Amino acid sequence: MHHLTGHSYLGGASDQPSGHTFDAINPANGATLAPPFHEATSAEVDLAVTRAVFAFDAFRSLSPESRAAFLEAIIEETLALGDAFLERCSAETGHPLARCAQERDRVVKHTRQFADLLREGSWVDARIDHGDRDRKPFPKPDVRSLLQAIGPVAVFGASNFPIAISVLGVDTISAFAAGCPVVVKGHPAHPGTCELAASAVLRAAERTGMPEGVFALLQGSKHEIGSQLVRHPALTAVAFTGSLRGGRALADLAAARPVPIPVYAEMGSVNPVFLLPEALATRGEQIAAGFVQALTVGVGQFCTNPGLVAGLDSPAWTTFTELAQEKAAAVAPATMLHPGIHQAYVLGVAQRQGHPRLQSLGTPATPPDPARHEAAAYLFTTTRQGLVEDPTLLDELFGPSATLVRCDKSADLVAIAEQMEGSLSATVHGTEADLANHAELLSVLSRKAGRLICNGYPVGLEICDSIHHGGPYPAATHSYFTSIGTRAIHRFVRPVCYQDWPGSLLPVELQDANPRGVMRMVDGVRRR
Amino acid sequence: MHHLTGHSYLGGASDQPSGHTFDAINPANGATLAPPFHEATSAEVDLAVTRAVFAFDAFRSLSPESRAAFLEAIIEETLALGDAFLERCSAETGHPLARCAQERDRVVKHTRQFADLLREGSWVDARIDHGDRDRKPFPKPDVRSLLQAIGPVAVFGASNFPIAISVLGVDTISAFAAGCPVVVKGHPAHPGTCELAASAVLRAAERTGMPEGVFALLQGSKHEIGSQLVRHPALTAVAFTGSLRGGRALADLAAARPVPIPVYAEMGSVNPVFLLPEALATRGEQIAAGFVQALTVGVGQFCTNPGLVAGLDSPAWTTFTELAQEKAAAVAPATMLHPGIHQAYVLGVAQRQGHPRLQSLGTPATPPDPARHEAAAYLFTTTRQGLVEDPTLLDELFGPSATLVRCDKSADLVAIAEQMEGSLSATVHGTEADLANHAELLSVLSRKAGRLICNGYPVGLEICDSIHHGGPYPAATHSYFTSIGTRAIHRFVRPVCYQDWPGSLLPVELQDANPRGVMRMVDGVRRR
Repeated sequence: MHHLTGHSYLGGASDQPSGHTFDAINPANGATLAPPFHEATSAEVDLAVTRAVFAFDAFRSLSPESRAAFLEAIIEETLALGDAFLERCSAETGHPLARCAQERDRVVKHTRQFADLLREGSWVDARIDHGDRDRKPFPKPDVRSLLQAIGPVAVFGASNFPIAISVLGVDTISAFAAGCPVVVKGHPAHPGTCELAASAVLRAAERTGMPEGVFALLQGSKHEIGSQLVRHPALTAVAFTGSLRGGRALADLAAARPVPIPVYAEMGSVNPVFLLPEALATRGEQIAAGFVQALTVGVGQFCTNPGLVAGLDSPAWTTFTELAQEKAAAVAPATMLHPGIHQAYVLGVAQRQGHPRLQSLGTPATPPDPARHEAAAYLFTTTRQGLVEDPTLLDELFGPSATLVRCDKSADLVAIAEQMEGSLSATVHGTEADLANHAELLSVLSRKAGRLICNGYPVGLEICDSIHHGGPYPAATHSYFTSIGTRAIHRFVRPVCYQDWPGSLLPVELQDANPRGVMRMVDGVRRR
Repeated sequence: MHHLTGHSYLGGASDQPSGHTFDAINPANGATLAPPFHEATSAEVDLAVTRAVFAFDAFRSLSPESRAAFLEAIIEETLALGDAFLERCSAETGHPLARCAQERDRVVKHTRQFADLLREGSWVDARIDHGDRDRKPFPKPDVRSLLQAIGPVAVFGASNFPIAISVLGVDTISAFAAGCPVVVKGHPAHPGTCELAASAVLRAAERTGMPEGVFALLQGSKHEIGSQLVRHPALTAVAFTGSLRGGRALADLAAARPVPIPVYAEMGSVNPVFLLPEALATRGEQIAAGFVQALTVGVGQFCTNPGLVAGLDSPAWTTFTELAQEKAAAVAPATMLHPGIHQAYVLGVAQRQGHPRLQSLGTPATPPDPARHEAAAYLFTTTRQGLVEDPTLLDELFGPSATLVRCDKSADLVAIAEQMEGSLSATVHGTEADLANHAELLSVLSRKAGRLICNGYPVGLEICDSIHHGGPYPAATHSYFTSIGTRAIHRFVRPVCYQDWPGSLLPVELQDANPRGVMRMVDGVRRR
């Protein structure tokens, strides 16, 4: 079992910790968890990136098989951390152990997917256009290209997935798969979980012979550490999951660098749900149950939990709101991730309770315990007109609260969709006839969201090749890229093109014989 | 024949021109070319984008065949402009008619490639992961995704390709192919060429039934017009080809918007050429001839012309520099694109002539005529130490001038490559043994450039699927994306994901039957 040091990790535990420390807190009781964690020093930030620079050439040149073996070793070493890993995570975040285990399962799954992606190999998008020396009026050169690693990457994990979107998240794993060394700025709400995960990554790196410097963990509770990291001249990209405010701040910093770099920030969204009339009339109770489950799972602390429900005024709508409130009130309050998130939620709920355009649907059966940083579910109602008068009602409130919007006519649903900012997801419940009758709504939603869901719920993201977890701003900083799923690797590569390059010096995927058998585009035709 | 109006084009010629005009100038004699061109008004900028917003839903929903027919109509209408188009272009830019015709050929070629891309259809990267309702512990949803158009796009054309990288460039054509309406801010150095090209696009749009507002041309010589366009809330992306200063200014504006949008700027680069010893010893004369041709073609006004040559000090290097100077001096001076570019070149050459770390290799046989805005070729030499003492010597000077860097040892070549900023291209001349002996140089260059060329020259970009015209900053603002070649379409799309979406409402490329027969990734396997 790894013994927590409270230090940053650069190859091994830092031997010159700053002495300026911060504490991990158990949100379920407010208690401090040992050990104290040392804020990374400016020298450590620089050293982490410098080591990553030195690792880069060796790491990007490894065979896909070598990097796949590294990823698989990360799985093994993570599992080898055993129950202690889950217990520390649970203590730092209030997540039940079962949830921690689910997150670990998710790490195993996405890490294996990237190992498989590397072995299959076609993701590099190899393209070959053969030359023709006799072409008139100009000879045609031989041109080939494929995707290659960009350089050292910084990862800022999320508080709400302390295992699956943190040190071991798709950000780190996809960057490794691409061939990019990673410097993680650990989330200060779960530093022990971060250190344990980092120890697993470093053991895996050592065991599989990865170059020194391929991974570092910087601990810290201060913005300055992240700012210094993002401004480091040798850094080439940043991945971030968290709040709009945090993501935008990093993106602004990165855009203002002498050499700007991309910040791939996934910043959450309101994830609206539209209830169409026939579906509401025939499945209202079932939808209410599913909605409340999606709203409150994980204490509503998902980027994808639904914060807004819109439907047409009708007896079925009234029944739906009553049922949803009844079910929401019955959900037992639970501990949120950390005191800061809890405080923001409590304030947000209080503001909504006093908001002139909102009507509170009731209070929870069991009051939440502030000492345990508990949140209860709160539902509010408003009208389309309410959203027009105060567009901030469309903003996300992180936690198990949602606003139900009563509309007079179908055009109001369309207007709400148009008013929405970019969203990770948009959900529609409708029968075949409903969907046919609301084609314009579907069209607008397809401009606004990264993922469209029919007769389901946005939580429970499926980890697969076709998933897209992103969307128009502010869901993400760049709508082309996803932070979940195998397409996430594209954030950390760029095309490199070879003109009349000697065959023996070409990357193997571009060699005529195609020894890896990858799918390529050869003279305009896609084939293996 | 189209009669030039001097107005901006929004569906047809603007009927309320501003009255504030600027003139097109013939750089070969300084004469004003009729008619005067009206600066687009603030209202016209807004109207152009608003019309594009209204066009977007209809345009993106068209079948690929419809958009391909539009592209082909653009080819036909462009050709139908006849010689008058080439003559106007030549008059506005000093380009010989043959060069103008080459650019038009290039437009035909790249436009046809995008029409072919649309018909083949696999570029949308369709992915399907089938659901499984019985999966434990959670049912697996059906998840599918593909690339879809993002919205209205602004295009800022380049001065140096008045036909092929302007109104009719890959930026406009790839955005149309993606399904995005386009607002072009015309380059003020060739407004008549822009208006003629715009008339062809609008005739093609009308003939093929494209929605109103799919294209607009804004004329203007003032930065404010471009700034207003980039800040317009309904704009979703910007494509730009031009100077580092111009591209960075637009990127900074776009990054500071309430909703930031990407600016895909291709900003040129120094395009270094490394001459390895055996190649220099055996082919020095041939390389000198090829280099001077690449340096001076088009009066050195390519993003890709080679501005720096590095080699090891030797008798072969001395002979190379002498031969290069002899050939460069013999190249007849020629008219540059416009007075501003000419002035910048003359100033840049004068600065280099007086620079303490540079030695001028000589003067042209025929002096350039300033009244005709002519440029001659100038070569300078320096040492590795000279570049260390003044790194600005590695900056691009737009025009037919280059610096030859004499190095003492192979490590100096590596050091120069490391010192370089991101570049569109990097070229190496070497025998098999040379390349084997300079593996580190090749490795560094593969981190620095978008395109690596062996025993050739960076100019004469091949327009094909595998080309990459971009690279690490400042070659481009985002190294993942290219401005030339079919991959350029990825700038104007984003993945849209469908979860449990009814089959009949899915985009055709995601339907189970795959009626278009596109290459897809289905349950992890790539197939048609």
